[in-house]
Amino acid sequence: MPAPKRSEAPSRIRIAKPAPVLDGGRYAVKRTVGDTVAVSADIFRDGHEKLRAVVKYRAPDGRRWLENELHTVDAHINGVRWAGEFTVETPGRWEFTFEAWTDRWATYHDELRRKVEANLDEDLSGEISEGVVLLAAALERAEGDGRGSIQHALHVLSDAGAPFAQKFDVALGPELFDAMETFSEREGVTALDPAIPLEVDRVRARFSAWYELFPRSWGGLKAVEARVPEIAGLGFDVLYLLPFHPIGVKNRKGRNNTLVAGPDDPGSPYAIGSAEGGHFAVHPELGTQQDVRDLCRTAHHHGMDVALDIALNASADHPWLTEHPEWFQQRPDGTLKYAENPPKRYQDIYNFNWDTPEWESLWQAWLDVFLHWVDAGIKFYRVDNPHTKPFPFWEWIISEIHKVDRDVVFLAESFTRRAVMRELGKLGFTQSYTYFTWKNSRHEMIEYFNELAWGEEKEYFRPNFFPVTPDILHAYLVHGGPPAFVARLVLASTLSPSYGIYSGFENFENVPVREGSEEYMNSEKYEIRQRDLDGPLLPMIRRMNEIRRENVALQHLSNVFWLEGQNDQLLAYAKQEPGNTIICVVNLDPHDAQVGSVTIPAHLGTAPVFVVEDLMTGAHYDWRIGANYVRLEPWGEQAHILKVL
Amino acid sequence: MPAPKRSEAPSRIRIAKPAPVLDGGRYAVKRTVGDTVAVSADIFRDGHEKLRAVVKYRAPDGRRWLENELHTVDAHINGVRWAGEFTVETPGRWEFTFEAWTDRWATYHDELRRKVEANLDEDLSGEISEGVVLLAAALERAEGDGRGSIQHALHVLSDAGAPFAQKFDVALGPELFDAMETFSEREGVTALDPAIPLEVDRVRARFSAWYELFPRSWGGLKAVEARVPEIAGLGFDVLYLLPFHPIGVKNRKGRNNTLVAGPDDPGSPYAIGSAEGGHFAVHPELGTQQDVRDLCRTAHHHGMDVALDIALNASADHPWLTEHPEWFQQRPDGTLKYAENPPKRYQDIYNFNWDTPEWESLWQAWLDVFLHWVDAGIKFYRVDNPHTKPFPFWEWIISEIHKVDRDVVFLAESFTRRAVMRELGKLGFTQSYTYFTWKNSRHEMIEYFNELAWGEEKEYFRPNFFPVTPDILHAYLVHGGPPAFVARLVLASTLSPSYGIYSGFENFENVPVREGSEEYMNSEKYEIRQRDLDGPLLPMIRRMNEIRRENVALQHLSNVFWLEGQNDQLLAYAKQEPGNTIICVVNLDPHDAQVGSVTIPAHLGTAPVFVVEDLMTGAHYDWRIGANYVRLEPWGEQAHILKVL
Repeated sequence: MPAPKRSEAPSRIRIAKPAPVLDGGRYAVKRTVGDTVAVSADIFRDGHEKLRAVVKYRAPDGRRWLENELHTVDAHINGVRWAGEFTVETPGRWEFTFEAWTDRWATYHDELRRKVEANLDEDLSGEISEGVVLLAAALERAEGDGRGSIQHALHVLSDAGAPFAQKFDVALGPELFDAMETFSEREGVTALDPAIPLEVDRVRARFSAWYELFPRSWGGLKAVEARVPEIAGLGFDVLYLLPFHPIGVKNRKGRNNTLVAGPDDPGSPYAIGSAEGGHFAVHPELGTQQDVRDLCRTAHHHGMDVALDIALNASADHPWLTEHPEWFQQRPDGTLKYAENPPKRYQDIYNFNWDTPEWESLWQAWLDVFLHWVDAGIKFYRVDNPHTKPFPFWEWIISEIHKVDRDVVFLAESFTRRAVMRELGKLGFTQSYTYFTWKNSRHEMIEYFNELAWGEEKEYFRPNFFPVTPDILHAYLVHGGPPAFVARLVLASTLSPSYGIYSGFENFENVPVREGSEEYMNSEKYEIRQRDLDGPLLPMIRRMNEIRRENVALQHLSNVFWLEGQNDQLLAYAKQEPGNTIICVVNLDPHDAQVGSVTIPAHLGTAPVFVVEDLMTGAHYDWRIGANYVRLEPWGEQAHILKVL
Repeated sequence: MPAPKRSEAPSRIRIAKPAPVLDGGRYAVKRTVGDTVAVSADIFRDGHEKLRAVVKYRAPDGRRWLENELHTVDAHINGVRWAGEFTVETPGRWEFTFEAWTDRWATYHDELRRKVEANLDEDLSGEISEGVVLLAAALERAEGDGRGSIQHALHVLSDAGAPFAQKFDVALGPELFDAMETFSEREGVTALDPAIPLEVDRVRARFSAWYELFPRSWGGLKAVEARVPEIAGLGFDVLYLLPFHPIGVKNRKGRNNTLVAGPDDPGSPYAIGSAEGGHFAVHPELGTQQDVRDLCRTAHHHGMDVALDIALNASADHPWLTEHPEWFQQRPDGTLKYAENPPKRYQDIYNFNWDTPEWESLWQAWLDVFLHWVDAGIKFYRVDNPHTKPFPFWEWIISEIHKVDRDVVFLAESFTRRAVMRELGKLGFTQSYTYFTWKNSRHEMIEYFNELAWGEEKEYFRPNFFPVTPDILHAYLVHGGPPAFVARLVLASTLSPSYGIYSGFENFENVPVREGSEEYMNSEKYEIRQRDLDGPLLPMIRRMNEIRRENVALQHLSNVFWLEGQNDQLLAYAKQEPGNTIICVVNLDPHDAQVGSVTIPAHLGTAPVFVVEDLMTGAHYDWRIGANYVRLEPWGEQAHILKVL
């Protein structure tokens, strides 16, 4: 190649290893409104010249780039890592980049200072003449106070009669330095290109408590609306509704997932679509479009959001099967393929053919479905099995919906390989289900939570901890009973800023359809249950939600410190934000009392001896840096939630 | 945005986290001719469909992409990591990428197998009809033996009279599977784009032994040429010459770096340029252009390369100062700035102004200098202080020189911040100087070598270990004497595939110009010494070079395992390639005997008890997995170099 043709030589400055960034900027890192974003990069050039660097950042639809100064943070080692920060105030797609330039005045200042200090009695008039050039150039750009400093210095340095000692004094002065830093031209400005994307969500995307219910078990949408004040009073932020659409009749499943439905069996709400309509419709027995709007308005009035469980599949009676057979998979013999995972078959459900040549109209139809419910007031979507639909579809549809309403939140209901779950988080899902349900020992819990809180996932994968779901009743709860429910509630609600309860959890429901199964006996998926807010665990749940709202340490993910407990049945950890330290100790054994000594490390920054308040009982204890005696028993307290006073 | 307009839906396959790759492909990873390149990537899609994947690779100027199959390596965990390999046979810029597609037949085969095995007595004629479609499509592309299998299967599956049991047998057959894998169309092929660059050098870029000398101390180029057979006989690959250009007279330095030269002082060979010429010229007292060519030819004849120390600076008498004043930095008063690092000043040297508006002609001039010497036969360049010249300059000039001669090797003489040294390696320098000289304790050596051998640097930063240079005589050698020289020789030549000796090392030269200085007394940089190949360490050096050539384990970097020695004065390690294990134990204490027990771990794969040969003495010892007694003493053996027999 010929030497690059430019008026200026190619930049001598390198900007590398920016943070935070995902896959080189292919995906956006996530933050929430009000966050201070800490950024850093390796910034260096050849030679010994001094650099200056800034982070430049731009709000969504912002016309102007703002900038904050960066500072080196490893000066004692390499001096190449620069760090700074900025605050994000509005939701949407932010961008940031780094810009660096050669600081000619600082370089000159440093050289001159060393020469003057060496006191070699050499002629430094050449050096002074260099200073004059730099000062004159800056003066053309200077304003305000700084202008005076520069003008004065230029005058002294240019004055053939002024003694050198005076010239050095002036040239090396701190006020002049500040003025020159402000007004000197940025030489060889180099920017990281392209800028790094940063997706900012509303705070509830990070910090939320969900209450999940089947509307039909509560008497329909109007009845649910009537319970909103109570549910809000329990401290929940999101009222999460299982699908409320019409349900197919053909191949309908019976109670306990039997293949043949009885005449009164309501069918699975995931077998969506009937003569009454598909994903745009409300099941006539549950209510009307207006009822959905009313429920949303009431929820918003009580500070809550409504979440809809959205499943992208169709019953055998879904109108789209006849209106759009091209969206479904047909066999060579013309029959449609129902869902299956051999040898299991889901005869009541048809999957969409995402490879159809008509994929564009299929994508558009789903966008219409989402926007229909967004318009009704539903801003949260728990998406069923997103990992069996194309990644590009999700990336597209989430972006399209956010153009209409940036407050919409998507929770990925995906339990599959890590890489796939992570990809869904990267491409736009706001929150994600996790493996939490299956992590019941101290070792498992710490290993897994470290992955979420301290790995790269912390930049984009927001866990939402559900101790149970309508599909997952873990053996730990089956065999552990109420103390196990308490332990899991405390873990979910203190470790993760977002967590959720599926109604029935507060009643300690724990009978599986058969021993060894994770399915519930008499699952609400296949029959109508009569639900009420009468569970004995509700007072504790209300208190947990209060504690979460009062303690900022419980509203963040990556602030956990595991504490040694000398007993593997005790899981002890501190969560800490500036000014707020919460210490949790959970007895993982639902059967027996467990004794241990929890070690508080000095780095938590407590006093050597300090007082903690048990936020469940109000009791006060003296704790100390070092070992602290703890005894927890299933017939008394299953967990301590201690606030450092 | 509207839904993307394409005939096919966007790819459902993701290819991420490819390895090896540097900075997302901005820089090339490095290998040498004959290497097998192990590659891997996360490859996955949504859903449950099975994938196939290949690595595609292309030789320099290759027209055709070749491909090798990839296989999953974490099937038991996530099943998303795929790995494979290919071999690089020619020097130059290779490229590789990954390609994956949905394996429709394997997916079909798996579903059908599970249904047949479940033996549910269901009608599978729909499934069979799907198979017919896949077989018919593949048949159109099939050739050879596979064609027969497919044709037969198509016949049986289409035959209304054939029993289902026979159809299943045929459809699930392994031969048919292989044929379908070969001939089925690749569905939804997705490639990583752009491809990843891979720079392949000749083997000597990785594995080399250098002998460094000042031609003037050996009687000039003709006299050096006469010693080539001896130096080659010592096992050196590269004869490295300090600059042989004319030296400036103005401001010439005297002996021991004094400011005023005496009438007979020859000056520093780094103060390049005089009335006799600049970087294109040969100092008349050292020889002629033809002598350089002769020396190169003789060296090549003896299997050696010649390296030139190239310093991009000029004496006060360099012709370019008058021919091209625009390439130098002028003060406002018109005077040129000489090199300085206040309070130090290098009045005999002028730096180039790399920010000159005439940078293009400056770059071109340096390219002409390099190509001049390449044409004379010099293929190795030890570049002086590359870290004070622009990064883009190096990236450009190395690439330009490689277009003319891909065998040229560049060694970066840079001792500065890690980030800068790494950048030079990334942008094209073939080998690099290191901090080796300053790593003299067990802890320092292990920590630093792990950085080189096991960090990302292993992909691009090839260390060249010099125990001393004309500028660096470490206190360890000053105070340790001959046993210290032996220890450093063994460490340099066994740990790093490339190492070098500066003449005088074999004579145990270790007198500093003053206590605490790393400069030599009577440095050859400022005076002419009379050198000869008479150092008492030469026999050991010859043997070390022999051992290195005979043992492939010593020709690679990232194959070291540190061995516990129960004594910090003993540094023990194994280096291992298939079929070749070398165990080194070095006594770091140059004054006293040290005793320890070196632990051989089971993972080295030796027999429980095995025989080692001391390659320096020929003695045989029984060693074992577990602890082995070692005693090393400065008055006997300072190090063991043991080969596992």
